[in-house]
Amino acid sequence: MAKKLWGGRFDKETDPLVEKFTRSIQFDSKLALYDVIGSIIHVKILAKTSNLTKVEADTLIKALNTIYKEIREGKLAFDVNCEDIHTNIQNELEKRLNDGNLVLKLHMARSRNDQVVFATKLYCKKMIEILCKHDIEEFISSLDSLLAQNKDVIMPGYTHMQHAQPVLLGDYLGTYKLMLLRDKERFIYIADNLKITMGAGALAGTPISYKEYSEAAENVFKEFEELSQAWKLSPTENSLDSVSDRDFIIEIVSALSIVAMHLSRLSEDLIIWSTKEFDFIEIDEAFCTGSSLMPQKKNPDVLELVRGYAGRLNGNLISVLTMMKGLPLTYNRDMQLDKEPLFNSFEIVSLELKVLAGLIKTLKFNKPKIEECLKDESLYATDLVYYLVDKKVPFKQAHTIIGELIKYSISSGKKIKDMSGVKLKEFSEFLNKEDIIKLFDPKKSVESKLSIKR
Amino acid sequence: MAKKLWGGRFDKETDPLVEKFTRSIQFDSKLALYDVIGSIIHVKILAKTSNLTKVEADTLIKALNTIYKEIREGKLAFDVNCEDIHTNIQNELEKRLNDGNLVLKLHMARSRNDQVVFATKLYCKKMIEILCKHDIEEFISSLDSLLAQNKDVIMPGYTHMQHAQPVLLGDYLGTYKLMLLRDKERFIYIADNLKITMGAGALAGTPISYKEYSEAAENVFKEFEELSQAWKLSPTENSLDSVSDRDFIIEIVSALSIVAMHLSRLSEDLIIWSTKEFDFIEIDEAFCTGSSLMPQKKNPDVLELVRGYAGRLNGNLISVLTMMKGLPLTYNRDMQLDKEPLFNSFEIVSLELKVLAGLIKTLKFNKPKIEECLKDESLYATDLVYYLVDKKVPFKQAHTIIGELIKYSISSGKKIKDMSGVKLKEFSEFLNKEDIIKLFDPKKSVESKLSIKR
Amino acid sequence: MAKKLWGGRFDKETDPLVEKFTRSIQFDSKLALYDVIGSIIHVKILAKTSNLTKVEADTLIKALNTIYKEIREGKLAFDVNCEDIHTNIQNELEKRLNDGNLVLKLHMARSRNDQVVFATKLYCKKMIEILCKHDIEEFISSLDSLLAQNKDVIMPGYTHMQHAQPVLLGDYLGTYKLMLLRDKERFIYIADNLKITMGAGALAGTPISYKEYSEAAENVFKEFEELSQAWKLSPTENSLDSVSDRDFIIEIVSALSIVAMHLSRLSEDLIIWSTKEFDFIEIDEAFCTGSSLMPQKKNPDVLELVRGYAGRLNGNLISVLTMMKGLPLTYNRDMQLDKEPLFNSFEIVSLELKVLAGLIKTLKFNKPKIEECLKDESLYATDLVYYLVDKKVPFKQAHTIIGELIKYSISSGKKIKDMSGVKLKEFSEFLNKEDIIKLFDPKKSVESKLSIKR
Amino acid sequence: MAKKLWGGRFDKETDPLVEKFTRSIQFDSKLALYDVIGSIIHVKILAKTSNLTKVEADTLIKALNTIYKEIREGKLAFDVNCEDIHTNIQNELEKRLNDGNLVLKLHMARSRNDQVVFATKLYCKKMIEILCKHDIEEFISSLDSLLAQNKDVIMPGYTHMQHAQPVLLGDYLGTYKLMLLRDKERFIYIADNLKITMGAGALAGTPISYKEYSEAAENVFKEFEELSQAWKLSPTENSLDSVSDRDFIIEIVSALSIVAMHLSRLSEDLIIWSTKEFDFIEIDEAFCTGSSLMPQKKNPDVLELVRGYAGRLNGNLISVLTMMKGLPLTYNRDMQLDKEPLFNSFEIVSLELKVLAGLIKTLKFNKPKIEECLKDESLYATDLVYYLVDKKVPFKQAHTIIGELIKYSISSGKKIKDMSGVKLKEFSEFLNKEDIIKLFDPKKSVESKLSIKR
Repeated sequence: MAKKLWGGRFDKETDPLVEKFTRSIQFDSKLALYDVIGSIIHVKILAKTSNLTKVEADTLIKALNTIYKEIREGKLAFDVNCEDIHTNIQNELEKRLNDGNLVLKLHMARSRNDQVVFATKLYCKKMIEILCKHDIEEFISSLDSLLAQNKDVIMPGYTHMQHAQPVLLGDYLGTYKLMLLRDKERFIYIADNLKITMGAGALAGTPISYKEYSEAAENVFKEFEELSQAWKLSPTENSLDSVSDRDFIIEIVSALSIVAMHLSRLSEDLIIWSTKEFDFIEIDEAFCTGSSLMPQKKNPDVLELVRGYAGRLNGNLISVLTMMKGLPLTYNRDMQLDKEPLFNSFEIVSLELKVLAGLIKTLKFNKPKIEECLKDESLYATDLVYYLVDKKVPFKQAHTIIGELIKYSISSGKKIKDMSGVKLKEFSEFLNKEDIIKLFDPKKSVESKLSIKR
Repeated sequence: MAKKLWGGRFDKETDPLVEKFTRSIQFDSKLALYDVIGSIIHVKILAKTSNLTKVEADTLIKALNTIYKEIREGKLAFDVNCEDIHTNIQNELEKRLNDGNLVLKLHMARSRNDQVVFATKLYCKKMIEILCKHDIEEFISSLDSLLAQNKDVIMPGYTHMQHAQPVLLGDYLGTYKLMLLRDKERFIYIADNLKITMGAGALAGTPISYKEYSEAAENVFKEFEELSQAWKLSPTENSLDSVSDRDFIIEIVSALSIVAMHLSRLSEDLIIWSTKEFDFIEIDEAFCTGSSLMPQKKNPDVLELVRGYAGRLNGNLISVLTMMKGLPLTYNRDMQLDKEPLFNSFEIVSLELKVLAGLIKTLKFNKPKIEECLKDESLYATDLVYYLVDKKVPFKQAHTIIGELIKYSISSGKKIKDMSGVKLKEFSEFLNKEDIIKLFDPKKSVESKLSIKR
Repeated sequence: MAKKLWGGRFDKETDPLVEKFTRSIQFDSKLALYDVIGSIIHVKILAKTSNLTKVEADTLIKALNTIYKEIREGKLAFDVNCEDIHTNIQNELEKRLNDGNLVLKLHMARSRNDQVVFATKLYCKKMIEILCKHDIEEFISSLDSLLAQNKDVIMPGYTHMQHAQPVLLGDYLGTYKLMLLRDKERFIYIADNLKITMGAGALAGTPISYKEYSEAAENVFKEFEELSQAWKLSPTENSLDSVSDRDFIIEIVSALSIVAMHLSRLSEDLIIWSTKEFDFIEIDEAFCTGSSLMPQKKNPDVLELVRGYAGRLNGNLISVLTMMKGLPLTYNRDMQLDKEPLFNSFEIVSLELKVLAGLIKTLKFNKPKIEECLKDESLYATDLVYYLVDKKVPFKQAHTIIGELIKYSISSGKKIKDMSGVKLKEFSEFLNKEDIIKLFDPKKSVESKLSIKR
Repeated sequence: MAKKLWGGRFDKETDPLVEKFTRSIQFDSKLALYDVIGSIIHVKILAKTSNLTKVEADTLIKALNTIYKEIREGKLAFDVNCEDIHTNIQNELEKRLNDGNLVLKLHMARSRNDQVVFATKLYCKKMIEILCKHDIEEFISSLDSLLAQNKDVIMPGYTHMQHAQPVLLGDYLGTYKLMLLRDKERFIYIADNLKITMGAGALAGTPISYKEYSEAAENVFKEFEELSQAWKLSPTENSLDSVSDRDFIIEIVSALSIVAMHLSRLSEDLIIWSTKEFDFIEIDEAFCTGSSLMPQKKNPDVLELVRGYAGRLNGNLISVLTMMKGLPLTYNRDMQLDKEPLFNSFEIVSLELKVLAGLIKTLKFNKPKIEECLKDESLYATDLVYYLVDKKVPFKQAHTIIGELIKYSISSGKKIKDMSGVKLKEFSEFLNKEDIIKLFDPKKSVESKLSIKR
């Protein structure tokens, strides 16, 4: 049996299957750094309130700082037999200080219920920072560079995946930029509202005063490089809420699902564009894979996986939402199951953004093929309607006239451009061939849409 | 075949099953008012840009205002044979004005893709306002009044549904208040970020200029009583994004799922408290139901339904998230399926808050039973540990000593209070009976937790 | 306050909001017919066990039969103020017989907990029968007729949406037939395992003996036209299980989600094939819709909605699964929330199958365009590899040789067919131009795949 | 760059992030054994069809058998730099045989698309066998042994978590047995319908004939100890379906979710029963955990985790269902994402069953406390109603009379048993005190429910 943080009243050893089933070290080791930070702060509070002597506190902090450094440098080997990362770190402390009593004084006025929330919130703050400042930025900057190279490209715009009207590639891809900017804003809101607290104890608070926590909290994160100076620590407002709240997890996992949904849409667009039939883009070989059987294959696997991962993200969201359903107050062990979905969602989205940034940066547009598609006259039908409306034809009539003109064009196999002026007049006296011909021009079509700020 | 807003190029009539399958009037009639508001604004823009004469515009606005009034007063009967609410309202206009050409001029520079988003966003703004200003407020005020009546009640606090430490009922119920306050804040953020726009057309923008839309948007909502003066209309920034974005729906449905999860937790707590075995509360008869077979039954059905509806809300969230997965730009008809889950989630949560407000206001606590439970000595185990730590017993030892004391108490069937001073000393020389006895006091226990701001 | 089936011990009237919140008549009226059937059977059991006189039983059965007939003919107007359909039907009985005491004798040895399960299970049996015997059959027969018309069409087969190898359209569409056949089998399994029982009471059984129920159950469904003679009624084996089990709901809703997923895949295929760029199919106008702004549009809305509804079905599944999570035994009111997702999933899938059957029957393939696509030489790369392997070139080398040949073909812009025999030999001495040329033949390629039973 | 199974036409190396993003070895190594089995069979087919010489085949099979043995003994170290397990095993072969050409001949007429499905299906067959024959059996046998010890225990039955009627603990726990038996049956059905096939190639079949596959398939699994002799291999019926079907994954993950839901209900029941207030059971210490702060705590963590994992299982189901939504035929890389949810769901459920089997076997019932609860007179209200009905009081009246009697009992604080005969007659002349008193007997109450087969 592995050493545990509890066990005084127990006669029997824990069943080995129970140990396996309840263990979380295999995933919560991601919280190691944040747990150590929490311990350092807690030691300082205990010293200030005379629960630890100065010598004791200094000894502990020194050892904790060493462990902190080792974790940062990836040198600390986690012990998979520990119950969780908190036990693991405590055992490390004990191993180094060889003074169990001292180490266990850390439990004074502290509980894992509070400890876990503290470390998880810090982790979330950090991951959101990385996501917003690096991953999303990098993705958007890739998109921007692609846009810069193709700023004047006009392409068919689609609704219902059918040709609708010509649009600027810039606006098309700009849509994805807007999505990611919304995502970023959403994360910033979530992070700003994420209140990092101490002092909840197991659920009922601790004997150390609110004032002591408030004072200890001042500038407390300053010394840790990982942490932003803008972040704040506060005493708990309601200790029962502190240990039983997982709103922040759900908010984050939900926001990550929205990012994944956005990226799945982009991927679908690119997959369709890379089909032989569309042939709008060329994905760089470094971002494709092949087939062990069919030598010609160059598959957009990255995009397919991004599309598919949207399902995984939704699953992670359902996992935490369902887990919290109907849980009575306060802490219940079910809540331990928030971490894997949270970590997994963060990691997938972060990797997706990185790998897509690379793929996008190297994307090539097949401009001749796109231009060819713009010859489809139906793309200009709305422009023809607006032309008639300008000539004071009531909208409904204009819509019907052009509808019939297109119907005739399809059934006769004759392009509108190739119809005689006389033929056109049969549909409407206002259809002047000379004018009409000029409308089948992607640039003119795009420029005539004045409602968009350029 | 019902009249449609399109059809020029079509030879055949729509298959009746297709009409049934694609119809949305049965649910999108909830958007009626907001659709009419959009039409009034659009008419004004068309008049300003000379797409309508003043007379035409006045005629249309007058008729639209009548329809608006009828909808507000619940007097407009929706026609379930229409394709959607937009067609329905257009037909109403035509019926009243008897001038199809005039009515159809409304389609100039407008598309249902944009129209639907406009109306849905206004609906969301309104519903969030109601939720925050009325439903959540009413719920919290009920909770406050319950708290006022029971402010000094102390009860057993639970972790893992096991007795942990005494806590104030005020803090317990205050946890639910905090949850709802977080919910409210989250909704305010969402509403603030919900940008209501016009000018996207089908996807590519319209021939009316950005400037015209900007000017038309000034103070445009002022005249509509339903709408807050603080809300703003803007021209679209990116027309492709405007018609293909459903982030706001997912954000709202996700936030509503969190509320429903909170309420499911409260319900579970109350259901457990109303069991014969706990017997902590009495739910008013007006909020219970009985059994057709068992005459004694008084069941907390309301709470059970609230608990169960958390599943429905999760389902609605998955419904919209999955629907958006992998959708290429821009508008696709799949997106029509956002409305039922959105409407349903709003309505359930709103009704839950209202009915729970009533239930909570009439809740009675069974104080003698709760006090009885506070006699459980194990609730004070942590206080005993703190007592020993105060006497300079290292934490680990203190924890072990009290663990063993409790084990002995259970196995011997003897209360700690009833043990002799000598017996107590066997566990630790620092266990002074006189002191110890005073610790088994709920009030003292609660007051000794100084970390919580009171 | 509406009349209720319970209420003896209650002093107060139910709060009107509670009535609204707990009411189910708006959806469970779908169970009307099955509830009446249950009542008729129950009356017979009560008569046989002398709980009703023959006269009483005859009177009740006569009235129930009238109601049964009216429901079948759509003549019974449901009363939306009733709590549920069971109350509604009881009120109907009372109205007709004008003898409340007689009607209420029906509650002897019966409980809504059992009654609801009975009616829901019969409804499920019936709906599965319709789905399997009509909807799926009709869909498959449409697919068969489309296949019959296009049996020899060869098309590019895709993996990763990239050209892979030529395949028969018959095999392509046959995949969807296999999916639906699997679905049908799955439903038959579920229906066969759906045990319809009586005698559970509220949870603890009834004073009527197992033997009486067994005898009453014999051939009991024979007289009801809706019901299959193959279905059986049995006494409950475990009354607690009978009232608390909702496995059958989850199984069905899960199986319906799989159907919806299958249909979403078919829809995606058809949507892609109907793009201007693929242009493989023409969807009949009767199954498309247009645009109020863009007169050229002919959109595959039906297919998009089918694609999107896969999300709704997943949502319904999550709704019931989450609702059942962590529910203690036995019946809890949460379970009432199983019905809307169940009904909704059945109705969507049934309508999807019907509307798709129509769409498929009228689908036209654009064979010239498909043939054009088959000219892509990369489709035959695997055949070239097999050719070399036949010449005893080790597989790996063959794969590399053809890979390089294709790379050269792409970079040089030269078709393999147009390369000289000498050039080909540069890649491998075994590449005989005369032989090679014959391999670029869709028919030959398909026929060379001997592993498939034709 | 790691060695890949493809790459001939590629000039560039794969981007390292892409390698990381697309890699599956970290989870699909679970398929190792089944992949080797597939390779052995494939070698035999290639030998029979002269694609391999006898010497080549023997060499390959010998090496594959060695690898097979090493995997079974846990001796093969997987190489986390490989793309997937199939590449890993191929590399192992090459390392041992030092003959790349020979090893790569294995790719003849084979594709990973088919290979992955083959291995995954075998894995599923095996896991279902283990689940049904060991895990579920062990769980049920634990339940049976608990029942044997407590067969005559009567306890309060609950609906809406309120006292309803007395029931046998045997029937209560028997409900969970029935759930698991249904689960088992469901899995057997799924496994029986899981068709293991070969010959699909990448999507279009292979040049090896159906007949060859049929003959090769005969008794092919016999030699592998892991595999049941009852399992069959068949040639593919439709090669496109073989590589694009994931129904079996969804069916299994859905069935596992139902098991997890069942176990979450059991856990909730036991958690509630182990509260101080219910105090119906004692969970063995070996299956509980404590608190690092509160020395008295003995928490039912195992049960809480089981309850919470129901959410994880739902999430996994949504993950695969969403992933498959709207995927065009045939194989798409998204499908690789089916494995983690599948493996995870199997492992969680398997471990849950094992750990619960241990917990249940050591569970102790607190019979005195349960008996105390049976003194609640309201549990017998239905028996009182039946008593009156027996005296020919119409049901409605009987229900009302007993309802009023209970109301009086509650408001007066007087037990029915303690009321005078005269008082009882006030409620109904048929209420004979002598008779009535005998009804408040749990055993009699249970025995009077004749509808249940004993």
